[in-house]
Parts: sequence; structure tokens; C-alpha cells
Amino acid sequence: MAQLTQSEQKRLVGTYAVNELVKEGLIFDGAKVGLGTGSTALPAVERLAHFIINGQLKDIKVVTTSFQTTIACENLGISVYSMNSKEIQGQLDIAIDGADEISPEKNLIKGGGAALLLEKIVAYNAKRFIVVADESKIVDSLGTKFPLPVEVIPEARFAVIRRLEELGAHCTLREAVKKCGPVITDNGNIILDILWDNPVKPEILEDTIKSITGVVEVGFFTKNKPQVFVAHGDGSVTKIE
Amino acid sequence: MAQLTQSEQKRLVGTYAVNELVKEGLIFDGAKVGLGTGSTALPAVERLAHFIINGQLKDIKVVTTSFQTTIACENLGISVYSMNSKEIQGQLDIAIDGADEISPEKNLIKGGGAALLLEKIVAYNAKRFIVVADESKIVDSLGTKFPLPVEVIPEARFAVIRRLEELGAHCTLREAVKKCGPVITDNGNIILDILWDNPVKPEILEDTIKSITGVVEVGFFTKNKPQVFVAHGDGSVTKIE
Repeated sequence: MAQLTQSEQKRLVGTYAVNELVKEGLIFDGAKVGLGTGSTALPAVERLAHFIINGQLKDIKVVTTSFQTTIACENLGISVYSMNSKEIQGQLDIAIDGADEISPEKNLIKGGGAALLLEKIVAYNAKRFIVVADESKIVDSLGTKFPLPVEVIPEARFAVIRRLEELGAHCTLREAVKKCGPVITDNGNIILDILWDNPVKPEILEDTIKSITGVVEVGFFTKNKPQVFVAHGDGSVTKIE
Repeated sequence: MAQLTQSEQKRLVGTYAVNELVKEGLIFDGAKVGLGTGSTALPAVERLAHFIINGQLKDIKVVTTSFQTTIACENLGISVYSMNSKEIQGQLDIAIDGADEISPEKNLIKGGGAALLLEKIVAYNAKRFIVVADESKIVDSLGTKFPLPVEVIPEARFAVIRRLEELGAHCTLREAVKKCGPVITDNGNIILDILWDNPVKPEILEDTIKSITGVVEVGFFTKNKPQVFVAHGDGSVTKIE
């Protein structure tokens, strides 16, 4: 049987996860739902829109994690709320997002799309956090293959790089395509992509790196452990509870 | 003898400190100097300008901590460098700034002028950190009188307030004068001013509060202990080493 491509796996898992969450009653009428960013989160957004437009889910209140996802919701006819709206008040029932790498302990690297800050605000303030991923995202350890994104105040760039290098990290300023300068986040900051020579301890480094003055957020997600849906090349979807 | 007013004490200590630092060779030809923000830092900026314009200090490279101080430097004819310029590369020889409160352990609250983020980037990346203050700033403990400023990503306001309240804090969104909305920092963020019922441990809370997702920086300064110059009502200046 033909294997699914990575793109097909992403579409499969986003759709499958939302179906399951609705079936299990974890997305329910009136739910406050955080929606992630990127090519795996988008099919989940589209599937949720399907349920809303069909009237199978009523009064869903959506918060997005990026301009990209806000625009997708606008195009799909879904109203978007602020985390500070009186309907949300800084707390969500559930958040669904992709991830760039997932370790066996369900620690994540996120931020490949430069949206890590809003993604973490949403993920860490959701009662339930769901991650959707194709099987290539499951790895043995974090820190040596997919670079860890760190969002940094531009004026602190050199100072933060020096501190990160003291932690053994190799830092690269993320550049925009076509060499038009650094990537600027939705919040006006820059992204440093960092790698280590050997696997690291994300639970410790998440706080250590965040504590550096000038660091706004770090792409390790270790604190609100997710339920993970993983699509495989054979067309199956497994769950890591 | 007439007592000095608070305003006179601020002018005295800013001028006195720069005179001493030049005399002791701690501000020297070619020095990279960080300049703080506010009514006590400004006389220090003006005194430094005096030495530069007179030619008594050569080749000083200045980094500022706010638009306010940058404009003051422009008006005084002092060139301002970025922390990321090739001359500075994220590290200063000395930084001079005011503080809102100073404890016996030389822990500080800063950020009354909403410039805490750049002030901390400068203070924590200076080999020597100097604080200038009038005597009213010396207190027994921090956290219960002068509100601790916390710089927060606007979208995370409610979520951060909830976490801070879990830490026992009372939070107030800082409003601009004339009720024209919240104060917006130089970095596009908001300020929460927080108080506790009882004195707190700034060394612990600095990291705990910074670790909250959506917090950009916190106004406790506990890590790069300063030398403190204090002006008194009788016209004397004392040092806390």
C-alpha cells in the first residue's frame, strides 16, 4: 500500500484529532478553543470550522496564536476573540497546535513558524493541550537536530547570545527569505535559533533561558503536558497520552 | 541649616557620583557607559556630558535605557550607540541609573518610569553597576510600598494577572495620565504594578515572575549588585558598597 506523504499525514492528523475531540466531548458547545499555527495546525482549524459552519458545534470561542491563523479563521468565517476578552479572561478549555519536535517525555520544541510566544500563552493557559504531528516529529531527545527558537528583544541580541553561549549553545539569528533582514515576530522581536552539541534537559533549560534578561520566550514547552496525536505513513493515527 | 529638597538631593547625587567615578578612574577614556532613565539619572547624564564636552573624557561610548534618555543625550550633544553596535557588542564597562526602592541587601525595585526592560538589559550587562538615589529610596523591605512593575505582553494580561494573584500579588494595570489608556512601554508592552500584603523575597520572585509566560521583564533587580550613592537632606552623600 502506498505510504502517505508528510503533507498527507499532517492533513490526516489535524482532521482526525478534531473528530476525536468532538466525539469525546472535549470540544463542546460553548468551548473556548486555542488554535495553533502552521501546516499541521491548519487542517485542524479547517476541521473545526467544518463543525462550526455545519452547526454541529455551537458558540465556540476561538483564540488564535498568530496573524496567520487569524487570517485563516477570517477566511473560514470563524470569529476570533482576544485572550483578554470578557468571554475568555485568559483561560481556555482546550488548545490544539503542532510541534517541531516531540520527545518521549512529551517535551516539545515549538517556534519553527516564529509564533512561539502566542502559542505558549495559549498552550499554558488551556485546561487541556492537544498536539498534532506527523511521525517525523517524534525524536529521542531535544536540542541537537531541530534548532530551539528563542524570542529576543532586538536591543539585547548580543547580550543574550553571550549568555546562551555560556550555556554551550550555538546561536543563529533567523533571517527572512530573500535576505531582507532578520525575521521579526508578531511582537516585534527577533528569533535566535540555537543548537547544542549534545542532548539537553528541556525542563531545566526552559526556565534558565527564560530568566536571561532580553529573552521574551523560549521554544521548549515542558510544563503543560499535551495529549499527542501522531499520523504515520501507513495511514494510522496513534495517541501518546 | 536648610535641608535639601528631594529634587536637590537627586541633582546632588547624580553630579557627585559622576565626579567620583571619573576621579576614581571608573569612568575612563574610551569607556562604554550605560545611562539610566528618570529624574535622578538625568543629572548624572548631564554631568557626564559636561566632562565629555570639556574634553576631560574622550571617546566615551554611551548606551541609553529609554527614548527619554536618548533625547536628553541628543540635546546634550552625546552620541548614542546601540547595545549591538560593534563598539559595544552587548557589554558595558559601567552603568549608572536611579532606583525606586533599595533594600539593605541592595536589591532594587526599578521601572517607575516604565523603562525597566532596557534598564535591566544595560544594568545586567555592565561590569560595574552604579545606583544614584535620594535618601527616600532606602527602605527596609521590598514589595509592600512601591509597586513592583512587571512588563507584560498585552495579549497575556489576564493570564499573567491570574498567575501573579496565585503568588499573592495585587495587580493594577498602569494607566496613562489623562485616562488615554494603558501605559505602553518602549517595546510595545503594558505594565502591571503589583503589591503584596507582606514583604517578599526579591531574589526568588525575580526568577519566578520572569518564568511566567507573557512576562517580558520584572522590576526586581537582584543579580548584578550595585554600588549605591545616596544623597541626604543635610547635603551629604554616602556610599553603600
